[in-house]
Amino acid sequence: MNTRKIFFVLLCLLISLSLVAKSPKYIFLFIGDGMSYPQFQTAADYLGALEDNDDEQALPSKSFSQRKGAVLDGPKKLNFMNFDFVGSAVTYDSCSFAPDSASTATSIASGKKTYSGMLNMDETGKVPYETIAEKLHKQKNYKIGIVTSVNINHATPAAFYAHQSSRSNYYNIGVELTQSGFEYFAGGAFIKPEGYGKGKENLYQLAEKAGYKIAKTQKEAKKITAFDKKVILIDEHLADSNTLAYNIDRKKNYWSLADYVKKGIDVIYNKTGFFMMCEAGKIDWACHANDAGSIVHDVLALTDAVQVAIDFAEKHPTDTLILVTGDHETGGLSIGFAGTNYDTYLDTLANQKISYAKFDEEYVANYKKNNVSFENAMKDVETLFGLKISDDKKDRLTLTEYEIQRLKNAYELALSKYNISKYSQEQQVLYGTYNPFSVTITHILNNKAGLNFGSYSHSGLPVAVFAKGVGAKDFSGYYDNTEIFKKLASLLMVK
Amino acid sequence: MNTRKIFFVLLCLLISLSLVAKSPKYIFLFIGDGMSYPQFQTAADYLGALEDNDDEQALPSKSFSQRKGAVLDGPKKLNFMNFDFVGSAVTYDSCSFAPDSASTATSIASGKKTYSGMLNMDETGKVPYETIAEKLHKQKNYKIGIVTSVNINHATPAAFYAHQSSRSNYYNIGVELTQSGFEYFAGGAFIKPEGYGKGKENLYQLAEKAGYKIAKTQKEAKKITAFDKKVILIDEHLADSNTLAYNIDRKKNYWSLADYVKKGIDVIYNKTGFFMMCEAGKIDWACHANDAGSIVHDVLALTDAVQVAIDFAEKHPTDTLILVTGDHETGGLSIGFAGTNYDTYLDTLANQKISYAKFDEEYVANYKKNNVSFENAMKDVETLFGLKISDDKKDRLTLTEYEIQRLKNAYELALSKYNISKYSQEQQVLYGTYNPFSVTITHILNNKAGLNFGSYSHSGLPVAVFAKGVGAKDFSGYYDNTEIFKKLASLLMVK
Repeated sequence: MNTRKIFFVLLCLLISLSLVAKSPKYIFLFIGDGMSYPQFQTAADYLGALEDNDDEQALPSKSFSQRKGAVLDGPKKLNFMNFDFVGSAVTYDSCSFAPDSASTATSIASGKKTYSGMLNMDETGKVPYETIAEKLHKQKNYKIGIVTSVNINHATPAAFYAHQSSRSNYYNIGVELTQSGFEYFAGGAFIKPEGYGKGKENLYQLAEKAGYKIAKTQKEAKKITAFDKKVILIDEHLADSNTLAYNIDRKKNYWSLADYVKKGIDVIYNKTGFFMMCEAGKIDWACHANDAGSIVHDVLALTDAVQVAIDFAEKHPTDTLILVTGDHETGGLSIGFAGTNYDTYLDTLANQKISYAKFDEEYVANYKKNNVSFENAMKDVETLFGLKISDDKKDRLTLTEYEIQRLKNAYELALSKYNISKYSQEQQVLYGTYNPFSVTITHILNNKAGLNFGSYSHSGLPVAVFAKGVGAKDFSGYYDNTEIFKKLASLLMVK
Repeated sequence: MNTRKIFFVLLCLLISLSLVAKSPKYIFLFIGDGMSYPQFQTAADYLGALEDNDDEQALPSKSFSQRKGAVLDGPKKLNFMNFDFVGSAVTYDSCSFAPDSASTATSIASGKKTYSGMLNMDETGKVPYETIAEKLHKQKNYKIGIVTSVNINHATPAAFYAHQSSRSNYYNIGVELTQSGFEYFAGGAFIKPEGYGKGKENLYQLAEKAGYKIAKTQKEAKKITAFDKKVILIDEHLADSNTLAYNIDRKKNYWSLADYVKKGIDVIYNKTGFFMMCEAGKIDWACHANDAGSIVHDVLALTDAVQVAIDFAEKHPTDTLILVTGDHETGGLSIGFAGTNYDTYLDTLANQKISYAKFDEEYVANYKKNNVSFENAMKDVETLFGLKISDDKKDRLTLTEYEIQRLKNAYELALSKYNISKYSQEQQVLYGTYNPFSVTITHILNNKAGLNFGSYSHSGLPVAVFAKGVGAKDFSGYYDNTEIFKKLASLLMVK
């Protein structure tokens, strides 16, 4: 080998090394709120169950001959499950192993622990933390996009731009949003746009004064381009609590999370770099309500949004890093239930046509108002959730006497002037803070599918961190959630 | 830079590359049966909770002033959580998303899917699969060690040496063990050493004929060395179902899983290489029984066993690969419970002094035999689990009226001639196949600690794969459990 050849080999090695050590220019951070292994694996298993084309379902409870050679093909991988690197992040905060979204998003955004409920402030509530988005904006001139399916001043998005001793300081959080200078916000409407008291300037007005162009319809949103510089998009078809509709309820022509990510790229793409955080916030809400059907569809909405980033990365492969993670698990969801042993019937969830939230609003409210009979309400339940009172005992969706009794008890309670604070210990576990009838319906449907929830709150399960692209390998391992910030800061060379 | 220097640099690079691509000589594969993220995170959180030295417990339900500045320090990392690489393995089998130990261990050992209950046979029950242990033994002359806390012919250990259409073919599995030629077996006694019928030769005799030295006492075991060549160690202090005692029940002078791994290294260490599979099998059994206290202590026993491998690896850093994984999750355990919201009190578990199994055997059997009163039984419950009937309402271990009623109902049932097959749908969920009294005790203690179980069977949660040492980086990513075999076979260059 002559000297020239050796130099060539060394040069190639150096180039490879420089590529490996390169800083990403375009960073996508997807956060499935309340999403850990149970949530995305349930979604993948559900898709797999739907695609199972065997005449017989292969089940452990069946004998060899009953299976008739049927073989389970397994889950259908979600796009991020194909990422090369994956780590696990531990989520405890300064007061809980089952932490909240404010503290965990703070850990991801700023690399510090704090108490549940606090946003980028230390445990005394006095010392603010600077977020990765702020650092990139200031130190590297990156453009910043914040997308969420819940309200744009809700805890998770707020953790990237706000510093408050309480996540409930919605107005102050909104003020910080307008002062952030970040280029793109999209999602549900401001909570408390005029604060709790009087005499406060409306947050939308404040935002406009600060130079934001605000679009509240899809028609307006479509016209938004990078020339608009600083943009706030509020979803046109707001559902419960002024957030994007659950994906299970979303009409086809309504903008999805993916649409907001696409538009965000239009707005913040530039040669220097950008950082986009996109939260699928209602996975968490559906987990709190123990509504597995809505969880699955919102995980799929997140998957579609991630696909937009994957497509972008294909065009910018040496500049892009995509992370997909959760802030904590919610609901203590298990793929398995005491009443179904080793069998699961996940395709059963396909019978659910509506989120618990829409059902509450559009149906249960009416039952209460018009004192509708249990029998009539159950007609809707059959249409919307598949569960039925029937003589066909072979149909898995036929309710047992025990299940009917549980529904009746819940219905009676739902139609009464019930007071959650006076619940018995048993009722607390049965219904949490949800409408007793709706939550009993989803509990029974979940159980029939072979799923179960252990809590209405968050749990201490670690979350997964899927990583693809420039610097992805740094995200392997089992680490604390504050490491996500630290790894990003190190990769992006900000201090 | 002169040519000599360049050659030196290239040489160093080549050496580094050759080290990176090297095959490991010594492989440890630890399998926590039923162990996934919830099990080891609970153990780590429990240790963290015990070490919390603040006067006040920092809890989300407390106000800022009530916390008095207390800060949760978080979990205490288990040794394998420090491994550089971690992946996730998806566990479904050919008939279930909540698969069994036979099929999942088959996937790990042989890289193929099959039906629940089958060991290294395809779904027709006719085509056998060759295991990684067999391949290494035959093709590379590696010595093989199989260690388990359950019976040595139980499903998980069997998956490394046996090929049977049913995991219940214990005698045939035992025969395959004696024919395997593997150098080291250690754990609980053979199940069905004389088969189900008559006229079969005792498995211990068969093993001796095949050249195995069998030790059934610690005294004998201590004398075993590499000169004994082929060894079977049966634990001296066998507990339920002739397995190693639960770690929570184990007396200090009884051999632990770690002791069997240590002795195994003595027997199979050699210059060519070895493969040791070590199963912590009773994590799964405790999960089935929803006994969180016993789970934690058996996870810690596994951690001690892993430490033996870590210490070995320190002496053989360029030759050793350690993997720590699970075969599936069991119990649908969540760190969080509907009745405790965001609060957990994991140190509560320290009040548990006995496994459900020993309590069944040594206490509940006596209650039944002597028709002991509920009040007297509850005295034992207070001593052994901390739960008490008391006026001290501030003590978390004081039982509520509702909890006492649940215990009374369960006790009455436990003392009756109950028939599980006649259980109501509600009773199935309340008690599974366990003693109603024991399982209600652990349910209540779990819930008071802030933990919950959703099932008495396995669940569909993916498992973690922690990897340290030569080839460890191959185990990052989100993959099917069959990939564990494939990655090993590729690293070890066997076909």
